[in-house]
Amino acid sequence: MSEALIKRIKELEADLEKLKSQLQERSEAGDDVELMSNTSPNEDTHCKLNSNTTTSSISSKKGNKASKARAFDFSANPRRHVALRLAYLGWSYQGFAVQENTDNTVEARLFEALLKTRLIQERQTSNYHRCGRTDKGVSAFSQVITIDLRSTQFCGGLGVTVPEHVVAGAKNKANGSELPYVKMLNRVLPQDIRVLDWAPAAEGFSARFDCQSRTYRYYFPRGSLDVTLMADAAKRYEGTYDFRNLCKMDVGNGVLQFERTILSASVKPVRPQLISGVDQYDLFMFEIKGLGFLYHQVRCMMALLLLIGQKLEAPEIINQLLDVKSNPRKPQYSMAVDYPLVLHDCHFEGLSWKQETEEVTHVLSTLQQHWTQSAVRTHVLHGMIQGLEARGGVSSNHCSLIEGSRQRNYRPLLERPCCESLESRINHFVKRGRLEREEGESGGEMVLRGKRSKHSHSSPGLPAPSEMPLANKSTHQQAEPLLTGE
Amino acid sequence: MSEALIKRIKELEADLEKLKSQLQERSEAGDDVELMSNTSPNEDTHCKLNSNTTTSSISSKKGNKASKARAFDFSANPRRHVALRLAYLGWSYQGFAVQENTDNTVEARLFEALLKTRLIQERQTSNYHRCGRTDKGVSAFSQVITIDLRSTQFCGGLGVTVPEHVVAGAKNKANGSELPYVKMLNRVLPQDIRVLDWAPAAEGFSARFDCQSRTYRYYFPRGSLDVTLMADAAKRYEGTYDFRNLCKMDVGNGVLQFERTILSASVKPVRPQLISGVDQYDLFMFEIKGLGFLYHQVRCMMALLLLIGQKLEAPEIINQLLDVKSNPRKPQYSMAVDYPLVLHDCHFEGLSWKQETEEVTHVLSTLQQHWTQSAVRTHVLHGMIQGLEARGGVSSNHCSLIEGSRQRNYRPLLERPCCESLESRINHFVKRGRLEREEGESGGEMVLRGKRSKHSHSSPGLPAPSEMPLANKSTHQQAEPLLTGE
Repeated sequence: MSEALIKRIKELEADLEKLKSQLQERSEAGDDVELMSNTSPNEDTHCKLNSNTTTSSISSKKGNKASKARAFDFSANPRRHVALRLAYLGWSYQGFAVQENTDNTVEARLFEALLKTRLIQERQTSNYHRCGRTDKGVSAFSQVITIDLRSTQFCGGLGVTVPEHVVAGAKNKANGSELPYVKMLNRVLPQDIRVLDWAPAAEGFSARFDCQSRTYRYYFPRGSLDVTLMADAAKRYEGTYDFRNLCKMDVGNGVLQFERTILSASVKPVRPQLISGVDQYDLFMFEIKGLGFLYHQVRCMMALLLLIGQKLEAPEIINQLLDVKSNPRKPQYSMAVDYPLVLHDCHFEGLSWKQETEEVTHVLSTLQQHWTQSAVRTHVLHGMIQGLEARGGVSSNHCSLIEGSRQRNYRPLLERPCCESLESRINHFVKRGRLEREEGESGGEMVLRGKRSKHSHSSPGLPAPSEMPLANKSTHQQAEPLLTGE
Repeated sequence: MSEALIKRIKELEADLEKLKSQLQERSEAGDDVELMSNTSPNEDTHCKLNSNTTTSSISSKKGNKASKARAFDFSANPRRHVALRLAYLGWSYQGFAVQENTDNTVEARLFEALLKTRLIQERQTSNYHRCGRTDKGVSAFSQVITIDLRSTQFCGGLGVTVPEHVVAGAKNKANGSELPYVKMLNRVLPQDIRVLDWAPAAEGFSARFDCQSRTYRYYFPRGSLDVTLMADAAKRYEGTYDFRNLCKMDVGNGVLQFERTILSASVKPVRPQLISGVDQYDLFMFEIKGLGFLYHQVRCMMALLLLIGQKLEAPEIINQLLDVKSNPRKPQYSMAVDYPLVLHDCHFEGLSWKQETEEVTHVLSTLQQHWTQSAVRTHVLHGMIQGLEARGGVSSNHCSLIEGSRQRNYRPLLERPCCESLESRINHFVKRGRLEREEGESGGEMVLRGKRSKHSHSSPGLPAPSEMPLANKSTHQQAEPLLTGE
């Protein structure tokens, strides 16, 4: 009996080893995410997918990291409230925010790096705020977070808190330079997540609440789209409107009012100087700047533009869907796919970004190598497409940027079945005891159970920070749906 | 004791499941190789890497396939000698030709498909010839093979052999249409390998020996390269020369003469109409057409062009390296990387390609979707690059298309150490008994041991087919190094 069991154990161990090496091999085959590395690019053209992935799933190592962190005496060092600006390619991640069911998020990697470099002791006490969440597949060029990091500035400085027990003496000499946060983090972050710069921030400054505006970009090829019509349509988004029909309602997370302000919205070619004629392979971008965005808002807005570009809807459909009195319920339609979306800018006033030029140049260099790979592959594909077209292959008009499969017969939006109304969703949560009516300044209103009225902090035009109180601090999944646009 | 063992077994089984799902997840995250599918693209934006990979490594399934094949009565059906034209993206494969140490080759997938569809009984008896081999990472738009496939043409036809024992009667009615080879194979091939068309071929027609010319393309971005100088340099390749200094000598495989003919060589923009000014992000291509190519020849030629484009060498270096009297030994230099190279065309006279337009349109459609993904990602990267340049990031001049790490100080080619001379390599193999001197038409000459003189079949300008006899038929690795250019 034991012999059979031992034999089975040996078989399983062998299988395990085999799968592990397959996993490793597959990691090494994953070119597209070896990005923005500080190492020499040509040393290994097929770098590891994500150097931290395999280690992070082993709980014993996490234990080691945590105990290392505890061994370090954080209390002996100053703390500094800073803003960090990040860029990342979201294609290999399950989103920015930490999640319960997966370790594969940008934030998870970020916190591993912060802990490994001992810039923070632990997340819970790091005073961490993020400007916005990006969804699975969505990238960012300017994601900003604020956090308290270890500092060398015993003599104080903007955002610095010097430890109380520090004795006057050697440590109170004039400050040397601050820790090279950008370099320290980039050295340990995966290649496709980079810190671009940092800025000291006054106590209380919050990436989440002090963001002035956010800008997204959505890249798409012209194909057979009428981009002029799309540009006309995009302009109709500008202004302050109720966007409930252009988002995924997130009532369960406390999002109850859908009025948002779009500062600018445009559709234009990526490289204007090159546009001559009407080449289906030209790339365009939808660029949108707003104060705050609802969940999946930008992707819904893009979906409408794609329908308009295909002449399946008229530009007026935008005005109609923004008219929630006439159209209180959202027609069922799929949003645009994730990978072309980039959180391009999060704008803050009063931050003085300390760029480390060498770091920026490193990132630039690696980005250029990966651009090269990507651009070359794009042209290999393009060359084959041209070859097939020359042989009589018929070009497809299918727009592959809208999720879901292609419908045989198009059904106009206003003739489609609708999603639940806002009121219906609210009642749903009231019945489950998660929302309750509360008397407030504006009369009867809905708030999440046990939380303050959402209007107690709001100022016109800015999203109310208290609207999405964290129901459960340990899962950040419920934070700031208001501020995301994906 | 048993309890502990059982517990261990359970743990291992759980780990195995976990790794399997990680492997699956990682496969699903590998976007870049889900290509040229016949299924709806949007059903699953993150398709499996290579649907045949996981099954092919399980030997029991191979056994099943083989026994299925044997159960089918091939001898009852006509055979047809055909040419198949393939396109594939080589980025996920370890090359075209079957190898001993890996299953991950284009040919391996091709033969799985041929066996699964019962178009052949087994490789050994299928009369298979291939036009050329492409190396790991290299793609092809027109790879041609010839092979004998099952046919429905009992009444005969070009290339058809009707079974001798077929009785006159029902089966001798007028032929219906031939088997839809293209569709049958594409249905079972992985998404990044496609059959484009087929042609009936006369008995004896060989993809290997009857190829009139081969055309390669190498795509590259302008960067800071002087493309005018490169275009001038490329022209110097045209003609018939001894290319021993521009290839990886493969004496061990019987390649003993290095004279080849280049019919045309050029460097030009991919999209000429768009070139205005000198944008580093413009794409160019090196296109080269020849009768036959040596091992890694095109990549060596490209490496020289890149050095010339960077003004590290003058265009005259080409003439110098083609002058094997003055420069009998190759200076040590790295070749260009693999992924931008495409075997664009293999030209044959006398073949009548039977294109299935529906199939071509399918391939086109899927190629376009993947072009979209690739082009969008390219522009996401480009947008970030522009953003960093705007912030003062300094663009790197490093040309990432040459293998190996960047040298701090450039050393001119003619001042570098050289590789072994041809004579030295020949002596090396003579000593080991693998080559022997043999009296031939041209006086004393070297041939692989036991094989006929290489000059017995040659015609000027064409590679001698008998030059690379298969030392071991079961490993095709030694076949046709002469005909490859990578």
